[in-house]
Amino acid sequence: MSAGAVPADGLQLRSRVTRAGALELSLARVPTPEPAAEEVVVRIEAAPINPSDIGLLFGPADVGAARVSGEGADAIVTAPIPEKAMPAMAGRLDQSMPVGNEGAGVVVRAGSSAAAQAMLGRTVAVLGGAMYSQFRCLKAEQCLVLPEGTAAREGASAFVNPLTALGMVETMRREGHTALVHTAAASNLGQMLGRICRTDGIGLVNIVRKPEQAALLREQGATHVCDSSSPGFVAELTDAIAATGATLGFDAIGGGRLAGQILGAMEAAINRKATEYSRYGSSVHKQVYVYGSLDPSPLEVVRNFGMAWGLGGWLLFPFLQKIGPADAQRLRERVAAELKTTFASHYAREISLVEMLEPETFRAYGRRATGEKFLVNPNRGVAG
Amino acid sequence: MSAGAVPADGLQLRSRVTRAGALELSLARVPTPEPAAEEVVVRIEAAPINPSDIGLLFGPADVGAARVSGEGADAIVTAPIPEKAMPAMAGRLDQSMPVGNEGAGVVVRAGSSAAAQAMLGRTVAVLGGAMYSQFRCLKAEQCLVLPEGTAAREGASAFVNPLTALGMVETMRREGHTALVHTAAASNLGQMLGRICRTDGIGLVNIVRKPEQAALLREQGATHVCDSSSPGFVAELTDAIAATGATLGFDAIGGGRLAGQILGAMEAAINRKATEYSRYGSSVHKQVYVYGSLDPSPLEVVRNFGMAWGLGGWLLFPFLQKIGPADAQRLRERVAAELKTTFASHYAREISLVEMLEPETFRAYGRRATGEKFLVNPNRGVAG
Repeated sequence: MSAGAVPADGLQLRSRVTRAGALELSLARVPTPEPAAEEVVVRIEAAPINPSDIGLLFGPADVGAARVSGEGADAIVTAPIPEKAMPAMAGRLDQSMPVGNEGAGVVVRAGSSAAAQAMLGRTVAVLGGAMYSQFRCLKAEQCLVLPEGTAAREGASAFVNPLTALGMVETMRREGHTALVHTAAASNLGQMLGRICRTDGIGLVNIVRKPEQAALLREQGATHVCDSSSPGFVAELTDAIAATGATLGFDAIGGGRLAGQILGAMEAAINRKATEYSRYGSSVHKQVYVYGSLDPSPLEVVRNFGMAWGLGGWLLFPFLQKIGPADAQRLRERVAAELKTTFASHYAREISLVEMLEPETFRAYGRRATGEKFLVNPNRGVAG
Repeated sequence: MSAGAVPADGLQLRSRVTRAGALELSLARVPTPEPAAEEVVVRIEAAPINPSDIGLLFGPADVGAARVSGEGADAIVTAPIPEKAMPAMAGRLDQSMPVGNEGAGVVVRAGSSAAAQAMLGRTVAVLGGAMYSQFRCLKAEQCLVLPEGTAAREGASAFVNPLTALGMVETMRREGHTALVHTAAASNLGQMLGRICRTDGIGLVNIVRKPEQAALLREQGATHVCDSSSPGFVAELTDAIAATGATLGFDAIGGGRLAGQILGAMEAAINRKATEYSRYGSSVHKQVYVYGSLDPSPLEVVRNFGMAWGLGGWLLFPFLQKIGPADAQRLRERVAAELKTTFASHYAREISLVEMLEPETFRAYGRRATGEKFLVNPNRGVAG
């Protein structure tokens, strides 16, 4: 496509929380930006709906109670927000916010700089928000040029999941642990982490919620898979942790007892080797980082793991800032080199921007079901 | 008292967990040790019952269901242990364990070294376990010689509470916080922390559980006191945290919702100053360390505080190891210098070793009621 064929405007998904206590999703028509010297305009052809996007998309709204008015690109989805959740929304009230952390597409317009011009016509992966847009203007340096022969779909998830999985392994090494526990392990991210750990020879305990997820991971070569729906779950988890020596966990679920059960199983595994009693429990530090919130209910922790423990939040961007640009670049280079193997993502369905506003579709991607990731193609089914 | 007057043996309190699932408290008669060159024998005259001692004393036994057989120094207290709590007792099964972290008394026998000889007849404070004993042999270097005119009672709690309170302030500084939240703040430890913070000009939010505890702390000069039994508790806590800028809390309670409420109030206080919405909450790290377990029920955390948070265990001895001997010594010197002021402890009752085994007494000290600390005088009411 030549630069001349770029339309004057394009659609962009917006999420807004009103003072009256409603969430609104709609499509705005925004002018296609004119790139500055160091910038490029990307025609976005693939952008995943990650759990981290769903938080901004829906906020705390009751998606099951959503109604749709209007049609096609003029549809507006309205969903009520429980009153007790409104105080936390104060910072985004009445702002029409674009959504979509990452995506990929073709550079259709470029600024005058050599770096920008070199990207014209290339397929690039990008991170930077507002990816559920037909056209997105970014700095050339924000774009990862994909190897020739790589489709936008293949590069759409080149940042969030790959860097999160690598960040977990990096955190493990920096904080002195030697093996990992991971929950919601059948997710795209979990499968990726499994491939990294098998390649790098790192012990990994995969926790899943269904027998079929356990079977899937075992087929892929996972050694330690524990199904939390099994009656013997805690004993099985303790055995797997004892076999790997894991003292660090990453939990995508957040609510309920699981994070505490992981700490308890770590302590029990350590105590199998204990030679003397300590009233304060083992002195080995056991840590679980909560990086997602698939279950928004309260976290409940039965403290049966002594005093050397930690629970905390973990987020990709602060982590990348903490390790600094050189180490972050090292992680990004590994992703680029292994994009079609270690870091390949799979999608349940590809949808257009207009389909994002259709009830059966937003109810499906809003369920956050493990293994059912949606891919948005903002330039599918729209004139542009 | 001359060395010659020291009896050949003395009583020592013991705690034992039997394989059959019972806790036993009794008094053993142990030979008075002969000190090596660098050692001294201390006649213990005052040893507090700290919450950290009660864990070892009673374990998970049901104190309310305890029975006593025998009389006086031959009494044996037996209390049942719930079956589900027995696995955690594996490391101490059938071991007769002495108890009592710290205490003070008079050096009645000394080894041949100059350091040991110099302590003969002096009142010393000691840390090292087995303090619910009439006579305790220790290395001279473990003893803190108290200034002339200081009674054993005044030096009995010179380690655990003072170093814990100073450790909290030290942790605050090392981890980049500038003010503190403390729960169970009407405890001896809490009052001590209040005196340190007033002296050092550190903002402190005191959380108590009863109006009379709030009144007591206000009388002592506390500025921010929040009563968790108040209907407006969360709002009051948020105001106090906003006024001090506290982003670090120390929690003695452990169970229930309080630790999570502190994190939530910190986030709400920070967001009062926020200028833009972040879907991940504020980027300011909020931390609560759990250092006690006054409530052994599960910790329940409503995650309304974004992703920059941590919860974890905190223990004095690993902390002192982490900061190293020079800094630990600096803390100990401050305690010695301010023992009768900043670090003064108060006791509800003084009891003998024999009284420790009497039902009305062990039920009282086993209640762990804030502000009702017991002091054991192992040489009271016994021939010796």
